[in-house]
Amino acid sequence: MRRICIINGPNLNLLGQRETHIYGDVDFETFFKSLQQYFPDVNLIYYQSNVEGELVTKLQEEGNRCDGIVLNAAGYTHTSVAILDAIKSISSPVIEVHISNITNREHFRHTSLLTPACAGLILGFGLESYKLGIMALLKD
Amino acid sequence: MRRICIINGPNLNLLGQRETHIYGDVDFETFFKSLQQYFPDVNLIYYQSNVEGELVTKLQEEGNRCDGIVLNAAGYTHTSVAILDAIKSISSPVIEVHISNITNREHFRHTSLLTPACAGLILGFGLESYKLGIMALLKD
Amino acid sequence: MRRICIINGPNLNLLGQRETHIYGDVDFETFFKSLQQYFPDVNLIYYQSNVEGELVTKLQEEGNRCDGIVLNAAGYTHTSVAILDAIKSISSPVIEVHISNITNREHFRHTSLLTPACAGLILGFGLESYKLGIMALLKD
Amino acid sequence: MRRICIINGPNLNLLGQRETHIYGDVDFETFFKSLQQYFPDVNLIYYQSNVEGELVTKLQEEGNRCDGIVLNAAGYTHTSVAILDAIKSISSPVIEVHISNITNREHFRHTSLLTPACAGLILGFGLESYKLGIMALLKD
Amino acid sequence: MRRICIINGPNLNLLGQRETHIYGDVDFETFFKSLQQYFPDVNLIYYQSNVEGELVTKLQEEGNRCDGIVLNAAGYTHTSVAILDAIKSISSPVIEVHISNITNREHFRHTSLLTPACAGLILGFGLESYKLGIMALLKD
Amino acid sequence: MRRICIINGPNLNLLGQRETHIYGDVDFETFFKSLQQYFPDVNLIYYQSNVEGELVTKLQEEGNRCDGIVLNAAGYTHTSVAILDAIKSISSPVIEVHISNITNREHFRHTSLLTPACAGLILGFGLESYKLGIMALLKD
Amino acid sequence: MRRICIINGPNLNLLGQRETHIYGDVDFETFFKSLQQYFPDVNLIYYQSNVEGELVTKLQEEGNRCDGIVLNAAGYTHTSVAILDAIKSISSPVIEVHISNITNREHFRHTSLLTPACAGLILGFGLESYKLGIMALLKD
Amino acid sequence: MRRICIINGPNLNLLGQRETHIYGDVDFETFFKSLQQYFPDVNLIYYQSNVEGELVTKLQEEGNRCDGIVLNAAGYTHTSVAILDAIKSISSPVIEVHISNITNREHFRHTSLLTPACAGLILGFGLESYKLGIMALLKD
Amino acid sequence: MRRICIINGPNLNLLGQRETHIYGDVDFETFFKSLQQYFPDVNLIYYQSNVEGELVTKLQEEGNRCDGIVLNAAGYTHTSVAILDAIKSISSPVIEVHISNITNREHFRHTSLLTPACAGLILGFGLESYKLGIMALLKD
Amino acid sequence: MRRICIINGPNLNLLGQRETHIYGDVDFETFFKSLQQYFPDVNLIYYQSNVEGELVTKLQEEGNRCDGIVLNAAGYTHTSVAILDAIKSISSPVIEVHISNITNREHFRHTSLLTPACAGLILGFGLESYKLGIMALLKD
Amino acid sequence: MRRICIINGPNLNLLGQRETHIYGDVDFETFFKSLQQYFPDVNLIYYQSNVEGELVTKLQEEGNRCDGIVLNAAGYTHTSVAILDAIKSISSPVIEVHISNITNREHFRHTSLLTPACAGLILGFGLESYKLGIMALLKD
Amino acid sequence: MRRICIINGPNLNLLGQRETHIYGDVDFETFFKSLQQYFPDVNLIYYQSNVEGELVTKLQEEGNRCDGIVLNAAGYTHTSVAILDAIKSISSPVIEVHISNITNREHFRHTSLLTPACAGLILGFGLESYKLGIMALLKD
Repeated sequence: MRRICIINGPNLNLLGQRETHIYGDVDFETFFKSLQQYFPDVNLIYYQSNVEGELVTKLQEEGNRCDGIVLNAAGYTHTSVAILDAIKSISSPVIEVHISNITNREHFRHTSLLTPACAGLILGFGLESYKLGIMALLKD
Repeated sequence: MRRICIINGPNLNLLGQRETHIYGDVDFETFFKSLQQYFPDVNLIYYQSNVEGELVTKLQEEGNRCDGIVLNAAGYTHTSVAILDAIKSISSPVIEVHISNITNREHFRHTSLLTPACAGLILGFGLESYKLGIMALLKD
Repeated sequence: MRRICIINGPNLNLLGQRETHIYGDVDFETFFKSLQQYFPDVNLIYYQSNVEGELVTKLQEEGNRCDGIVLNAAGYTHTSVAILDAIKSISSPVIEVHISNITNREHFRHTSLLTPACAGLILGFGLESYKLGIMALLKD
Repeated sequence: MRRICIINGPNLNLLGQRETHIYGDVDFETFFKSLQQYFPDVNLIYYQSNVEGELVTKLQEEGNRCDGIVLNAAGYTHTSVAILDAIKSISSPVIEVHISNITNREHFRHTSLLTPACAGLILGFGLESYKLGIMALLKD
Repeated sequence: MRRICIINGPNLNLLGQRETHIYGDVDFETFFKSLQQYFPDVNLIYYQSNVEGELVTKLQEEGNRCDGIVLNAAGYTHTSVAILDAIKSISSPVIEVHISNITNREHFRHTSLLTPACAGLILGFGLESYKLGIMALLKD
Repeated sequence: MRRICIINGPNLNLLGQRETHIYGDVDFETFFKSLQQYFPDVNLIYYQSNVEGELVTKLQEEGNRCDGIVLNAAGYTHTSVAILDAIKSISSPVIEVHISNITNREHFRHTSLLTPACAGLILGFGLESYKLGIMALLKD
Repeated sequence: MRRICIINGPNLNLLGQRETHIYGDVDFETFFKSLQQYFPDVNLIYYQSNVEGELVTKLQEEGNRCDGIVLNAAGYTHTSVAILDAIKSISSPVIEVHISNITNREHFRHTSLLTPACAGLILGFGLESYKLGIMALLKD
Repeated sequence: MRRICIINGPNLNLLGQRETHIYGDVDFETFFKSLQQYFPDVNLIYYQSNVEGELVTKLQEEGNRCDGIVLNAAGYTHTSVAILDAIKSISSPVIEVHISNITNREHFRHTSLLTPACAGLILGFGLESYKLGIMALLKD
Repeated sequence: MRRICIINGPNLNLLGQRETHIYGDVDFETFFKSLQQYFPDVNLIYYQSNVEGELVTKLQEEGNRCDGIVLNAAGYTHTSVAILDAIKSISSPVIEVHISNITNREHFRHTSLLTPACAGLILGFGLESYKLGIMALLKD
Repeated sequence: MRRICIINGPNLNLLGQRETHIYGDVDFETFFKSLQQYFPDVNLIYYQSNVEGELVTKLQEEGNRCDGIVLNAAGYTHTSVAILDAIKSISSPVIEVHISNITNREHFRHTSLLTPACAGLILGFGLESYKLGIMALLKD
Repeated sequence: MRRICIINGPNLNLLGQRETHIYGDVDFETFFKSLQQYFPDVNLIYYQSNVEGELVTKLQEEGNRCDGIVLNAAGYTHTSVAILDAIKSISSPVIEVHISNITNREHFRHTSLLTPACAGLILGFGLESYKLGIMALLKD
Repeated sequence: MRRICIINGPNLNLLGQRETHIYGDVDFETFFKSLQQYFPDVNLIYYQSNVEGELVTKLQEEGNRCDGIVLNAAGYTHTSVAILDAIKSISSPVIEVHISNITNREHFRHTSLLTPACAGLILGFGLESYKLGIMALLKD
């Protein structure tokens, strides 16, 4: 059974409450259960932290034991060399996802420091972005 | 039966021959047939042109009659305001796809002028990017 | 009888359908007829293309036989050195017009590569911009 | 009878004497009389000042009592947030005009801070720019 | 017998008429005949188009059958990723040439997007640039 | 009795009429009376001008005789080296205030040339910004 | 009784010891007691962390239960999209404060990423900045 | 007898009081008397204003009747297109002077918008800069 | 006996496993033992964390009790104002070290925000950089 | 007999030994002899120096007595205003050549300060660049 | 008797022959003799070199024995940190002079790296600039 | 016996006299003797020149015969492509050293063009930087 880990960055624990015109009104726990049902043959793991360094640590832990990581680094996407280095340090492929079309928003959200080290990028499909990310990993 | 149109920009007619370390060695016609088999219930249309203005015209033609467009504008991705305006002028959702991880390549390929007008962006998964793009359209 | 040529660039064939909050809801053909009535003593010509190089060719053709050109290069306004060179290659004066106030819109629309080679610029008056452009040519 | 106010910025009181290869050799007073004859049914007002703040004050005074303003802010065009704010503070439409094609001249003249707040922009037609500006206002 | 293809971009069909202080007063057809006489043992081909995408297509067609291409992409030199990709997609060496010293002209003409993919660059020698380009190809 | 001077720059004489969604609908004279009542033990002075140089002169005049200045330079905030030099030339502390959160508005409003020479900055609290500025001066 | 939370970022636990020519020689605990005495009717809360993600978490916790937050994010002010997103995710107004006039210091301290999402900004008044921030919240 | 006009910009009326470590402690009136004694055969005129537009007006007035102008535009040096245009509009040569070495100070003081239109530039010699400026004019 | 603290930032716990062509294949624990043998008369302390704020806290703790710190902030080197402020807040000298020649790598690694506050910088010598850093501290 | 001078800048004395994957393995002396044989009717002169000012002096000496100069300024190409001024000071035409395609290498090698003053530019053909440069001079 | 040294940089040995529309047609030796006559009580020294490092050496040699230096570093003005450092290393005041108004010429000539370390700057007066420079030194 | 060469750039011959608050008051000759005593088993060579091209030549001469070079290129550090190319052309490892912490000084000193080609960089330790550089070479 394949092991795929979803890692969410800062403020994504507020999904469903926060800026719902951008992020929608479903909380991630509810959505995660639907994902588990959709992929019954995958061992799906979920982790969220607001702390940049804890995301680094989690990537290191999962990075050599799971079959792939779906990462939404949220606000750290645009500035974190530490997360970039973590992605480069591990062997599992990492798929970068974003809920919203970040190229439509404030200027500092247009650039991701992480994409060059990721296997692929999926953005703009709401929570479906996570599902497409898992599908992309399952193809490998 | 849903109608989905794949539009490819310049030089993608050479797929399978050109820079195969980046783009792979499958030509698009062969791949397109496998896509049709994978989505038997979708009316899949394929169009390619090297001419920017012909891509604009095709987007206009399909943009009000199909259920979604998967667009790889290739070299025009980075500079074409005309294609951007065409995307904004039509009602069908457009998904931007790229075969390679363009953020890993020359600097002028890092930015897409088109993404802000697209429903979503998928890049880096090889030809699988197209398949994920069609899946994303079918969810709507 | 004076010959004046109106040349429209990409997506202006959709005028009246496309982003009507910006461009209004009149299609160009209807407007063109009203222009012909307003200037009964002028031989007004109209041409539209989505293809940058066809606009270049049209400018070359008309550029030595008409008394002036009113040009809305739309999306090519901001990037086309080829159209700029065509304007510089011909003897007829070219008036650049825009329907909307492009300085109010996305950043990449703020600068026109073409204005330095044009006789004048008129922008922001809706379709009236074309009428003012013809008036300006008739003064010469 | 419609009231339209022409407001000229710094150094335009020297028109006809100053840099005549750029600005021509007609002084504005003579030209203004010809404008009054051309538009006999319009109450044309003319004001010039070299002082940025006096232009602000004039815009405030006329801005709620005239039917439109034709503004050539000259050297303040490129830097004056105060004039921009005055334009935004009043209800009359303001048309920005320039005698020369400023995009052909020194680099700091290429950008106008004022255009985004104006109803339209007309440049490059010599003193005819003012006449076209009045015509544009009379269409409204 | 070696086959060498000369490809000219937009507005070069006007050579001899257009901005003759920069480009000289010889038309390309006349010059091409003198080239054929100068290189009697070379099968020289000539193609010109104003359309970016047609230049891409021509590069693709000739790129695997001729012994070298002398390319003057004119106004597309500075912005065309599509032509750059075409050059990278083909096996024939491409020599970039320019008639004038483009580094002496407007700022946007100083940089060529194409040179990094070309075998070499020759500029500033008038029409002699083409002849030197052919000589360079014949050395290989 | 302490003397504190409020100095307002261009267009603030229109407060209460102008862009009321940003600046509110109270005119400054009414608000100034309420300030005088709130600080009965302070000799509050009020000055407004649209002219940059008159603001410089007022700062010079008050700068050595009052106990502090609350300055809203409005549109001159972003470009006036002359006002900056006036602030540096005087001994009274100057508090910069803004009614709106200028970092939320057009890009050219994000930077103040004046803040480095001011004792402090208060922005975003509507007309309360002035009251907080006076309080800050009274603490010294 | 109103609940107001003061949140301090990295290195502010060293206040009174660190760079005392910039930050003064009072430690924050002593100052906090004086604040509590000054505002006897306010339930003042104080929190400090050196960890960016813990500041995010605290903002989330307090952001829906207190009446306002006075935030000095210190070194994270200039780069933290995560804290910016936290401020946007909560309903309590956040006032940004700084002890020193940061526009007078190193270049990278001149810009705050947080101000656009805050209700207001107060800087340069030493520890008084916090007191003014609380006053501003009490006015609402 | 030659007529030479010294024009001083904003805050130079405070010379001798203001930032004396930069500008020295002599007021301009005292210095001007010593200049008159030094150049007994020159009709020296002195004018100062804090208002940009009044400097423009003075340049226009003196610009066609005096033999040369020594201009220290102070804070307007770096931003005033209006003063630049006034200098270009007049026939008398203008010498730009500065008391301090402005290239040693804040970044925004390093560039003068005026120098390209001036006959020459002298800076860094304290009040001697004015004397050298007059000498330079007398050589002509 | 002198106390010297080595502080390592994010992902350096993976040394010896991660990108070994850049960082080598020795893990830091093994190397640290060799360092202790090499400097038998120094009390060497070692700390690593992936969390930016924990590095700040450690710098604060050690900064007033050890004789010097050798810091490799890894990915936080390029963006952390918080670590910069911590270095400035403490009295112990801090030596910045890097294993690789970071000026040879991605563009965002070329600049260190920390160097201006450090006593010195050593980079490019592999793990020897740490040894040289300790030697430099011992000279003081 | 025509006199043509080849001038080589710094490190070109190491040709054949240095970075042979870029510059090839032929030393310049050997190549120079083959050039002399190829152009038996030309008086070919060769000069090399590592010192910028000596290249200036040589350009001055040869610049009025030879029929043309082929210049490879190597590392000084990108920064030397002094060599640029020397080229502008002499009457002989100067052809700039480079062995490698410098637009393919480090960013600081992409721009030549010298090209605007040269008669032409030839780059990318290995040592053949020199031969083409001589041919171009012989055409004049 | 005071000793003043004039140091000229590259290509100024060609004065009178080179670009005479900019630099005039007098050679420096002739001019230097007229300077010696004009200042009979000054021991005037003259030195010129095309080599940056020789200018550094000369500045070092004269810098502690003469009463002042008039320096025209010509093409090295804009890039030479070495000459800047030499000026800072010596005790004699250095006056920077230029013959032409360099702010009117190519963009790279607008900025001098040397001015911040010089006692003053004089430019635009032709060879008179040197005379004014000597006068300025004699005032000290 | 190993041969190590120390190469110093412009103005370092003035060490001990020049800007002693930055560079200290020891001259290099004295320091060099102490280095020779410290490393009795190393054949230490010392060379200094103010001329960029002579530094290039010395690097070429020593670059294939010594075991390592310690280079302080001083003012040429920031602009010399010629020295960079020399470093790349030789086989001996080059260690870049600086006496001061150049990242703390003027902006143009923050970037070294040479570091990417050097084996390592050591800066900020005063003359000890040279000693550490030699130690680093001896480890190899």
